[in-house]
Amino acid sequence: MTGKLPDTCLDQIFREARTHNAWLDKPVPDALLHAIVDLLKLGPTSANCSPARFLFVKSREAKERLKPHLSEGNRDKTMKAPVCAIIGYDLDFYLHLPKLFPHTDAKSWFEGKKEKIAETAFRNGTLQGAYLIMAARALGLDCGPMSGFDNQGVDREFFAGCAISLMAIRPDSFRGRRASASTRWRGSSKTPR
Amino acid sequence: MTGKLPDTCLDQIFREARTHNAWLDKPVPDALLHAIVDLLKLGPTSANCSPARFLFVKSREAKERLKPHLSEGNRDKTMKAPVCAIIGYDLDFYLHLPKLFPHTDAKSWFEGKKEKIAETAFRNGTLQGAYLIMAARALGLDCGPMSGFDNQGVDREFFAGCAISLMAIRPDSFRGRRASASTRWRGSSKTPR
Repeated sequence: MTGKLPDTCLDQIFREARTHNAWLDKPVPDALLHAIVDLLKLGPTSANCSPARFLFVKSREAKERLKPHLSEGNRDKTMKAPVCAIIGYDLDFYLHLPKLFPHTDAKSWFEGKKEKIAETAFRNGTLQGAYLIMAARALGLDCGPMSGFDNQGVDREFFAGCAISLMAIRPDSFRGRRASASTRWRGSSKTPR
Repeated sequence: MTGKLPDTCLDQIFREARTHNAWLDKPVPDALLHAIVDLLKLGPTSANCSPARFLFVKSREAKERLKPHLSEGNRDKTMKAPVCAIIGYDLDFYLHLPKLFPHTDAKSWFEGKKEKIAETAFRNGTLQGAYLIMAARALGLDCGPMSGFDNQGVDREFFAGCAISLMAIRPDSFRGRRASASTRWRGSSKTPR
């Protein structure tokens, strides 16, 4: 039990924060991206299962790989963002439970249970997506969560051969400026392979 | 674009926060619950669809209605919590889009699309669940997110006749004290009726 945070903090992560779709032309250092992940990974998930996987797209080359899979309305603003975070979930997350939740045999809760694996990965990966937004805002960055992309295309391009399914792409394109309209986030999910 | 929040704030909502399962014997005023909702509802959802619905269980009578639907391991700590937040999602959420997202006909994206409705409600309701945790922590309260309950039973007991499906029960039992072990959150979901 602690005290209420100062209003300036509540303003920054909730009240004054907006979904942005235009960005400052300033690079986001990798150290800052690591700091975001170091915070968000502390947010609670079921049995600490932490299924989300984050891919940060920064380089021109990486963005070009992403471009053809974005819906037209999202293409320009996404390409102009200093960073795009692609959030996937790992369908093999439960293999790590002996390390992440060592006080019981949590791995056995999931073995051979495809539907439970998919639902747990989706729910907890989504929670972690929300933690990412909160962590980025807390570190002073603006976000423009959205989807509007070809889920399977991005999945093939960036996660081929992995058990990682794309949950939502979120050009959490940091350091935005207030824009005239909000973008939408309609992240879609896949059934497990 | 803003600055990084002070470390004391980051500590409170991420670094020092824990999942609690024991609680101070202090009531949580309704005004504080309203303040939590007033913050969390500002967190981003797809097209501002905001499908989550929150039911706060405080009275002895309400807790007794909840009790038989809790798994045995969760019963005692849940009953002792000053407040339990039940989080559901409203499968009729899209009917409110003309108000929540007025600049386009967003309602039409969902009409007659059961699968899309269910997925959107689940994902965005889950995001709002994460915002609830962050908002509660930001206002100085501790949480013990978990499920371990009979989803259908709680649904029948509290949401019968509504289009609200229970997504996860979370005894976000505020004002906890540090406990020796974390509880788990394995919120389950329902298919839409």
